[in-house]
Amino acid sequence: MRAKKKAVVLSSGGLDSTTALAMVKSEGFEIYSLSFDYGQRHRFELKAAARVAKAFNVQTHLLVSIDLKKIGGSALTDRIDVPKSRRITDMQREIPVTYVPARNTIFLSYALAWAEVISAADIVIGVNAVDYSGYPDCRPEYIEAFERLANLATKATVENRVQIKIRAPLLYFSKAQIIKKGTALGVDYAITHSCYDPSPRGGACGQCDSCILRLKGFHEAGLRDPVRYRKRA
Amino acid sequence: MRAKKKAVVLSSGGLDSTTALAMVKSEGFEIYSLSFDYGQRHRFELKAAARVAKAFNVQTHLLVSIDLKKIGGSALTDRIDVPKSRRITDMQREIPVTYVPARNTIFLSYALAWAEVISAADIVIGVNAVDYSGYPDCRPEYIEAFERLANLATKATVENRVQIKIRAPLLYFSKAQIIKKGTALGVDYAITHSCYDPSPRGGACGQCDSCILRLKGFHEAGLRDPVRYRKRA
Repeated sequence: MRAKKKAVVLSSGGLDSTTALAMVKSEGFEIYSLSFDYGQRHRFELKAAARVAKAFNVQTHLLVSIDLKKIGGSALTDRIDVPKSRRITDMQREIPVTYVPARNTIFLSYALAWAEVISAADIVIGVNAVDYSGYPDCRPEYIEAFERLANLATKATVENRVQIKIRAPLLYFSKAQIIKKGTALGVDYAITHSCYDPSPRGGACGQCDSCILRLKGFHEAGLRDPVRYRKRA
Repeated sequence: MRAKKKAVVLSSGGLDSTTALAMVKSEGFEIYSLSFDYGQRHRFELKAAARVAKAFNVQTHLLVSIDLKKIGGSALTDRIDVPKSRRITDMQREIPVTYVPARNTIFLSYALAWAEVISAADIVIGVNAVDYSGYPDCRPEYIEAFERLANLATKATVENRVQIKIRAPLLYFSKAQIIKKGTALGVDYAITHSCYDPSPRGGACGQCDSCILRLKGFHEAGLRDPVRYRKRA
């Protein structure tokens, strides 16, 4: 029996990364999920990531603490208000204040390090076409550039000729398509968390960009979002 | 009067990064030095980095703690013996166990984040032709790939059209050339630290790869290394 191929999956506990994880798992990969405590105000997502790891019976779930607060520059780590009740067309007009400087570059760098240590060649990130409109590090050309860098960066790739593949299976999916795909794969979205500004007990606000995109996705998919909202948008 | 241009300098407190810092400072940049506590056994280098920051009167010195120990895979963070008394030709034959998975990718990612927050376009890394022979993430093609990635990765580069430049001014320098250059710029190498396996009081071992390359460099430059060795190689 051949050993299963391993994949490092960036898991935020959100809707997208959980669906990406389910997709890669369904392809037969052994899953190593990686989450970051970066001082985000929506740290409920870390609990969600742990629930996801358990639900999908991952091989290892690693939580890495990183010091992004010290670097600053984002509404997700600083005392900047998270915007509420924006129109989607407004979200798409400019990069939002919830942007975290170089976040995916930092996350993918750690994933690359871990992939090397566990001898994985596949790194999975749940970026998609909706985020794409807002965040520079969710675009296909960015993902390609990181893959190119990865294949020049490590002992595994340079000495042992491992070909790193950055998999972004949701890149061209709409939120509704993601939800339909995950639902077909049996993802229980009740365990996920997307809100940027949850209540102290973890209830989603329903009004931040992330909640609005999520709710719209469920609506368009003709499904009901099972997470708890403290106020419906 | 125009504001000085800012540079983020990866500063390990070692000979190379300190020389790179001195070179960029001499070009008129305002220096933001960045060091990492990654559980390295040679944490004396962090004290050295703080001394360097003070000696060069940097604008800000930022020490970021990162969790590389959790990821593992290196003699510098794990309980793997640091090799001693190796021939330089042996060092060049394969990537050493002191290699830290994806280290420069992680370091440069943080530097990129900080550069964005402080509006710097220049990131400085002291990789050179000697390290080049051992570490994949010290090669010119790696540095170029990171620069390409950086210019696709951030709000600053994508929305504000900042052109990130990854400066590796020592890339083609030998250790002796680096030491001569730094000496000409007035660098006091007594405050730097290079040893991978220092004594509890910080004395350099004189036998690890880093000490051997350093001592050889001083020898070839016709200069005396001012740091304290507990045993001469």
